[in-house]
Amino acid sequence: MIKVVLLGSGNVAYHLALGLKKATGFSVIQRYARNSTNDYSFNSSIPVARNLKDLAKADIYIIAVKDDAIASLSDKMSGIDGLVVHTSGSIGLSELNDNLRRGVLYPAQSLTINLKIDLKKVPLVIEAGSNDDLTLLNQLASSLSKNVYQLNSIQREKLHIAAVFANNFSNYMFICAENLCNEANIPFEILKPLILETGQKVQDLNPSQAQTGPARRNDQVVIQKHLNELSGEKKEIYKIVSDAIIKTYEITD
Amino acid sequence: MIKVVLLGSGNVAYHLALGLKKATGFSVIQRYARNSTNDYSFNSSIPVARNLKDLAKADIYIIAVKDDAIASLSDKMSGIDGLVVHTSGSIGLSELNDNLRRGVLYPAQSLTINLKIDLKKVPLVIEAGSNDDLTLLNQLASSLSKNVYQLNSIQREKLHIAAVFANNFSNYMFICAENLCNEANIPFEILKPLILETGQKVQDLNPSQAQTGPARRNDQVVIQKHLNELSGEKKEIYKIVSDAIIKTYEITD
Repeated sequence: MIKVVLLGSGNVAYHLALGLKKATGFSVIQRYARNSTNDYSFNSSIPVARNLKDLAKADIYIIAVKDDAIASLSDKMSGIDGLVVHTSGSIGLSELNDNLRRGVLYPAQSLTINLKIDLKKVPLVIEAGSNDDLTLLNQLASSLSKNVYQLNSIQREKLHIAAVFANNFSNYMFICAENLCNEANIPFEILKPLILETGQKVQDLNPSQAQTGPARRNDQVVIQKHLNELSGEKKEIYKIVSDAIIKTYEITD
Repeated sequence: MIKVVLLGSGNVAYHLALGLKKATGFSVIQRYARNSTNDYSFNSSIPVARNLKDLAKADIYIIAVKDDAIASLSDKMSGIDGLVVHTSGSIGLSELNDNLRRGVLYPAQSLTINLKIDLKKVPLVIEAGSNDDLTLLNQLASSLSKNVYQLNSIQREKLHIAAVFANNFSNYMFICAENLCNEANIPFEILKPLILETGQKVQDLNPSQAQTGPARRNDQVVIQKHLNELSGEKKEIYKIVSDAIIKTYEITD
């Protein structure tokens, strides 16, 4: 049995604890959490350490804390023998203390305590400082998910930026849509099937094949009409994104 | 039996023809298509007119042609007795010839011939020039879909702009993500579950509740790191959208 210690008590730690409960060959023997705020979410049979000096001896330590706390936490763990991995998309492997056996286990999907998620389908991106540790981490990741990818820190950083566009920025486009609906007393409900379809479409087609709309057609009449109706950030975003779409297809059409 | 004539042979005409085949109380008695290019897609038992003077007498005529052809087509139909509706999100009711009984039947979702769609779930937005015609159009729309909304032309125009953000612009965010993945040799596959989740999340939560990411947290360290990695339109979009997100939550937090 490969022993795992989970550090942190947020969304990622919670979902990893759930996933590891079902993973064969792995066992979470301890959690580390400075305070008890989120303890209620976790399986109460896992012992909790409140102090780093009480950390149990384990094969893998998973640091699932906020990005800006990872480096200092790893510094305090510098005597540890096991493999120490963080779970952040935007923090390099090298930001972990270099006395440690280091690795990264990044779930490329947002994990929220309140939302059920099938970890088996969550892409896990891994990286490790040695081949042996990569093998161990791959074994751990494969027991949690069917989609495991090995990327280096530079690639993972790029992936994180790509995820900001794919998730955060597309959601902001939904916010703009929501605002426009509210302004005109239109139920936002109307747009929900369209939004769902937008995400479903690119499961099969490339986004560049799935693009439609006035800018895709370079329909300046509609674009100008829309710009006249808009103001502030939404006008600015409409203009820049439309121009970018037009430019994209000018080159390839 | 209420008789319907369908004008046009594109995606919308195709899906309406399919939907009307199953709708009780309605029958497509004729299609109008200037040429035979897309005829193969349609049920061959529907007679086709190639000339407007051959249009059959019907209760409802649905104009499903390109936006810029709607007005002139309706002008050529000015002697018609039935209700004449167009299916565009961005064209006002008043752009149909004013000798006609006018209406709009706008499917607020993109309809592609190649993609199967359950029209019952597609929101249909209706408008008509008189109460009697609104009743007739509502009857038609309700036989096709479970989600029928009545909006005026000003609202429909706003809805169309909102749909550009919700669908076209969010898809462009996926294109940016795809490009970033390609540049760094990262399989775009990794982001597909995240993209699917982004659309699914706002089926239950408001987009403004669903927002996450560096800009939502106003995490300037990550934002600057990302901006340093980007160039061109993607950098500009990253900056403007992040600023807009930060501003959105400054006000409400």
